[in-house]
Amino acid sequence: MTNVFVIGLGLIGGSFALDIREVCEETRVYGIDRNEDHLEQALELGLIDQKATVDDLDKADVVIVAVPVNASIDLLKEVLDRVSDNAVVCDAGSTKLQVCEALASHPKRRNFLAAHPIAGTEFSGPSAALRGLYKDKVNIICEVEKTAFKLQERALKLFSDIGMRIRYMDPAAHDRHIAYVSHLSHISSFMLGKTVIEKEKNERDIFDMAGSGFESTVRLAKSSPAMWAPIFEQNKANVMETLDEYIANLQHFRTLMEEGDFEGIFKEMENTNRIKEILKGISVPASDKK
Amino acid sequence: MTNVFVIGLGLIGGSFALDIREVCEETRVYGIDRNEDHLEQALELGLIDQKATVDDLDKADVVIVAVPVNASIDLLKEVLDRVSDNAVVCDAGSTKLQVCEALASHPKRRNFLAAHPIAGTEFSGPSAALRGLYKDKVNIICEVEKTAFKLQERALKLFSDIGMRIRYMDPAAHDRHIAYVSHLSHISSFMLGKTVIEKEKNERDIFDMAGSGFESTVRLAKSSPAMWAPIFEQNKANVMETLDEYIANLQHFRTLMEEGDFEGIFKEMENTNRIKEILKGISVPASDKK
Repeated sequence: MTNVFVIGLGLIGGSFALDIREVCEETRVYGIDRNEDHLEQALELGLIDQKATVDDLDKADVVIVAVPVNASIDLLKEVLDRVSDNAVVCDAGSTKLQVCEALASHPKRRNFLAAHPIAGTEFSGPSAALRGLYKDKVNIICEVEKTAFKLQERALKLFSDIGMRIRYMDPAAHDRHIAYVSHLSHISSFMLGKTVIEKEKNERDIFDMAGSGFESTVRLAKSSPAMWAPIFEQNKANVMETLDEYIANLQHFRTLMEEGDFEGIFKEMENTNRIKEILKGISVPASDKK
Repeated sequence: MTNVFVIGLGLIGGSFALDIREVCEETRVYGIDRNEDHLEQALELGLIDQKATVDDLDKADVVIVAVPVNASIDLLKEVLDRVSDNAVVCDAGSTKLQVCEALASHPKRRNFLAAHPIAGTEFSGPSAALRGLYKDKVNIICEVEKTAFKLQERALKLFSDIGMRIRYMDPAAHDRHIAYVSHLSHISSFMLGKTVIEKEKNERDIFDMAGSGFESTVRLAKSSPAMWAPIFEQNKANVMETLDEYIANLQHFRTLMEEGDFEGIFKEMENTNRIKEILKGISVPASDKK
């Protein structure tokens, strides 16, 4: 029997618990959450087999820590202190450099696996947990060589069993790239939402004029501030760089409009249409499918 | 038998043709397109009953003009010149002020109905036509009082038959509001796409790190430049205003980050979370369902 502990039973942790419970054989899933209501809800929703506390961590084979990145560093240290030498402790945070640096000299560093599952929705809490959320999704693993061999193997087998595709990356590169393809999207969406809300005091007017395009572009503005503010803080330098480039591109677009250069506007959009091909790449390559 | 002519058999016109053909009884759908391949394709896909040319317009009861807004004004004038006194000619453009002004003193103004169906996808051409695209979607009608009574009635019956919800608005207000809830979303998405593409020369890195959040936010950057450049041109003043406010909001967010005010960042996002309630309004209110 493999004892899997999931700490933080929101969208990310709850979905891990659910899939591991259903897919992995001979596994028992324990839930820990400082929010007692969430813990109770996770049990009722069938995300976990049973509730637990940090005092039970000595019997863990696998621990997945899925809490906001500002809380996870201290929590990971405590978890590593409490687990046995044979346990693997994974995080799931959207930033990787700070956590890797903070744990670099921890005596149980070899028990830690730095992971970032690229999956989610704009919702949060145990009720947001989704069956199959991780199927065909990428899990980015950082500094894999710093984790003990057999512990790498156990964690990666678990991720693979629930359908994930594994990719390896160094933490600094991870944080730089993820700022572009994830963090900036959230800011662009939040600020789009803000701009429209501020303008449209009479929101009834928005309701009927907004179509699926607006809905899609502003979707991420529903995301949890408690999750995202700490991500922006930990990845500040990279995120500010993406923001500067984004603002410069918007200002250039504005200049073209002001000058009446709609041929230039056309070309800007035509060049960016290449995103079609790039987005196709987000779908699972056939060769990668299980 | 009602003879419906659809001019421009792309996503918008093709979807109108398809639904009208399938839903409306005693109706024959004729297609006109300056692109002969598209016309042939529309026939093969079953979007239209038969091909036609502008010379056949004298037998039209309803004409729907669904071409880019820069081409539609001259085309609408020509169509109005050619149709009988008993035909109603609708447009489907995303801007309404210029077209209403341009046709204000046309001798057949009473035969014109200015419409903007709030529906679409990021794809284009006859193969992008979708069955049921307009079901439960809003069709914004401008200056309805300038259209002859019985012609209003015929057009609105057709839109209602394919499941659309009708809303009335004046053209200037339409263009001002639509700049916020549609046009700005497209620019934010195109520039997000541009920023990421420029940075990520090695696109393979994007493929695997980008998740559904990026995909959603950048979806509109696949849209047709031939459709969108003329929209931005016709709605230049309103769009530039939205763009200025959007850039100012992004710059404010950047300032908060630079100052390390992540509590401020949290509040910005928390305030914008209200978009959840607003987006719920985009779904069809139960009372409005057919």
